[in-house]
Amino acid sequence: MKLGEGVEAAIHCAATLAGVDGDSTMPGAALAEAFGLSPSYLLKHLNMLTAARILESVPGPAGGYRLAKPAERITLLDIVLAVEGREPAFRCGEIRQRGPTKLDASAYVRPCGINAAMLKAERAYRAALAEVRLSDIVADFMKGADPRSVAASCAFAERHQRQQKSRST
Amino acid sequence: MKLGEGVEAAIHCAATLAGVDGDSTMPGAALAEAFGLSPSYLLKHLNMLTAARILESVPGPAGGYRLAKPAERITLLDIVLAVEGREPAFRCGEIRQRGPTKLDASAYVRPCGINAAMLKAERAYRAALAEVRLSDIVADFMKGADPRSVAASCAFAERHQRQQKSRST
Repeated sequence: MKLGEGVEAAIHCAATLAGVDGDSTMPGAALAEAFGLSPSYLLKHLNMLTAARILESVPGPAGGYRLAKPAERITLLDIVLAVEGREPAFRCGEIRQRGPTKLDASAYVRPCGINAAMLKAERAYRAALAEVRLSDIVADFMKGADPRSVAASCAFAERHQRQQKSRST
Repeated sequence: MKLGEGVEAAIHCAATLAGVDGDSTMPGAALAEAFGLSPSYLLKHLNMLTAARILESVPGPAGGYRLAKPAERITLLDIVLAVEGREPAFRCGEIRQRGPTKLDASAYVRPCGINAAMLKAERAYRAALAEVRLSDIVADFMKGADPRSVAASCAFAERHQRQQKSRST
């Protein structure tokens, strides 16, 4: 089982944006710089988060990204699904219906038990991700990370955030 | 999040081998035929299951595969890890340590909270997979699948299994 590398970047960016003041935004280039990522690589993931309404993009030279809703209402599951897609990890190709023992469709009305068991485990995974809010991640960082890291992150946000005149939504 | 297509094939093959009599084996070509798969494609996955000691391979023209232990002692987690590898799905690249806010290593002794939360969810996934034994999958099929499917699968196993003189282990 594999998650794309973009998941780590997406969660870190969302957590960083949870730290900007009020309606302020942060440019994609600053987010890329914060994590040593290529801006063009990161843009793809920021776009996915924006399409999923986790982030909001403010256009223009003074624009950038901000959370589209409070960090308390964004979960790790929201971010993972935005970046990885909503399809189940287990892909059932219905191979039970192939080969010489294949019967007519009426024999396969009941879902394959293997698929059902795999999807049940995936529901447990998603439920665990849905339990963690972005605000929990930020609170854990503020409370538990090295104070130098917290200070450096706050200073970075302070330096790169751009105040906006009014919220677009 | 994605699982390779081989997972479906691996679980179906293991479930099929749970249905052969005693120490009998089934050739890889028959398993491939059963699910309409290319034998060379399937061989890779059968080898992985053998390397993980889920299957046992009996060499020679009259050989084939059989379970290396009772189906009660094989879980879906065993099979998924054998095919997909044991690495976590979430790959933490420690991007928190990149960029201009990077500090010396002593600031990152505590694991990243994002990585910790992602791994916790993955433990829930693996625990759910570990709860399902191959014998449960087989019992569910025998009890719940269409009787024509059950009869066809049993007849296929009967036709393709090869009795062995003695168990190698």
